[in-house]
Amino acid sequence: MRNNEEILSLFENYLAQIQLPEEPQLLYQPILYAMSGGGKRIRPTLLLLCCEAFGGDVREALSAASAVEMFHNFTLLHDDIMDNALVRRGKPSVFAEWGENVAILSGDAMMIYAYKLLRNVPENKLPRIIGIFTEMALQVCEGQQYDMDFEQRQKVAVAEYMNMIELKTSVLLAGSAMIGAILGDASEDDCRKIYRYALELGLAFQLQDDLLDSYGTEEVLGKKIGGDILEGKKTCLMLNAMSRATEEDREVLRSTHLDASLTNEEKIARVKEVYDRYDVPRMINQQITTRFERALSILSTLDIPVERTVYLKEFAENLMGREK
Amino acid sequence: MRNNEEILSLFENYLAQIQLPEEPQLLYQPILYAMSGGGKRIRPTLLLLCCEAFGGDVREALSAASAVEMFHNFTLLHDDIMDNALVRRGKPSVFAEWGENVAILSGDAMMIYAYKLLRNVPENKLPRIIGIFTEMALQVCEGQQYDMDFEQRQKVAVAEYMNMIELKTSVLLAGSAMIGAILGDASEDDCRKIYRYALELGLAFQLQDDLLDSYGTEEVLGKKIGGDILEGKKTCLMLNAMSRATEEDREVLRSTHLDASLTNEEKIARVKEVYDRYDVPRMINQQITTRFERALSILSTLDIPVERTVYLKEFAENLMGREK
Repeated sequence: MRNNEEILSLFENYLAQIQLPEEPQLLYQPILYAMSGGGKRIRPTLLLLCCEAFGGDVREALSAASAVEMFHNFTLLHDDIMDNALVRRGKPSVFAEWGENVAILSGDAMMIYAYKLLRNVPENKLPRIIGIFTEMALQVCEGQQYDMDFEQRQKVAVAEYMNMIELKTSVLLAGSAMIGAILGDASEDDCRKIYRYALELGLAFQLQDDLLDSYGTEEVLGKKIGGDILEGKKTCLMLNAMSRATEEDREVLRSTHLDASLTNEEKIARVKEVYDRYDVPRMINQQITTRFERALSILSTLDIPVERTVYLKEFAENLMGREK
Repeated sequence: MRNNEEILSLFENYLAQIQLPEEPQLLYQPILYAMSGGGKRIRPTLLLLCCEAFGGDVREALSAASAVEMFHNFTLLHDDIMDNALVRRGKPSVFAEWGENVAILSGDAMMIYAYKLLRNVPENKLPRIIGIFTEMALQVCEGQQYDMDFEQRQKVAVAEYMNMIELKTSVLLAGSAMIGAILGDASEDDCRKIYRYALELGLAFQLQDDLLDSYGTEEVLGKKIGGDILEGKKTCLMLNAMSRATEEDREVLRSTHLDASLTNEEKIARVKEVYDRYDVPRMINQQITTRFERALSILSTLDIPVERTVYLKEFAENLMGREK
């Protein structure tokens, strides 16, 4: 069995040899730019690890792995237009570099190209995999729409937020894992379990992402702490606090980021003071741990020897920055 | 065998019973709006007619027919953003009604939904149909990019233009026809022929579209004559004239639409005077007829009794407004 690094290098080599057409340049160059812009390749790695855990041949899963990575990057291209985001992975976004029309159309082509890559899975598995991929892709769109809806709404329940992040981010991880398991000839039951493992892991990851944005360090985060607070974003911290705070504290949470008399540092400190008073970080941390451990515990219930799950465990630990 | 109207009504009934999710509203409402906004349903009708011509059961092809219609409407949603088009079929475009972000994301969901619909074809035909659909979809994106490229370029050759309209519009018609033929269990050879029939027809239709914009009547066109001329659009008329005109006449063709001293009527008259002098309308008309007749002649070479092709002939005549 290959470890995470070997899997990743196999994947990068496969990706590098995919030949996109040369013309029209403004359609295909941005795709190349986006796909070679790095990123952690989380979804394809997981897909390949799942395939191999069940004894499948990863080389036969490389095309499907590229499909989920292509799809993920398509969502980034279009999200960057919707969010007016000029920077992606430390470089200009496709939207910033080529403009909106190119980002729309290249994104469209990426999504279609994902299906082209998916087409290469064994024919007897294609109907099922196309079905899973398509449901997953629709759910990602739903998640993105809820995310935009929530920005416009005064009140969002914690449960609604959890549903949104599940759709927007976890489902893609879960679907990737399941496609890998199918390609590895896992049983129905194990396919469902591996989906659940990745879903819980994805939720843990997203909650941790929210937590670190306010409580991490600049080194780990790779950017300044407190960005979400300064944007007044409805993160799980914010919604958790809002659900339990007094009306007075809720007003602090709602309005601090708009208060022009405060410096950024003061805004961040004031909101975190409320979070701390309601014990929000500890509660979120507990949820993260619960979900993370639930994900790991699912691995031990799979119908394969426990030593075959070692790299899936490692993957989860790496993703959460909980390396041994 | 059903005629075009019966096929269309079968299709509309099928489309009307497709249940999209209720939520998120801003994702699915625009899809419903776009899909129920009418349009001529050219592509699904052709798909179903081809299926039936070869003896297939159209009811089994309705889902694939909805897929090509969904895909077509997805391209309109995104094209309307890129072209800044506020009106579509006499109503506000999705872009105008809900804004750009909604049009991007609903469009994305429509494309994915097209694959969901396509997923319902018989499993033994799915790999091939997914392959054809995906290639066709990529070519449509290529065509749209070339179209945008050409707007920025000084010089476009007639052959480049023909390639662009083939990709942007004919390929979708041709792919739809081929998918229908496959679902009707046509032979390989007949599938290729039916593709060619629809491709030629699509090109004839697009050339006629260009011709009518300058030489049609307001009744037939449903809008004012001369729109392309006033926009300075590189249509087949313009490119044909440019390829043979003197430098002096080329300058007239290039600059008339920008001349603020002229009324719209004068601009249109001046450009058409050049077209007429170079015999452009007659030449384009000849090309249209050649392609139209080529399309019809292919029908008689199919390995089915000629009476089975009668509605495909009628479809072509209706499309070109050449009803008997």
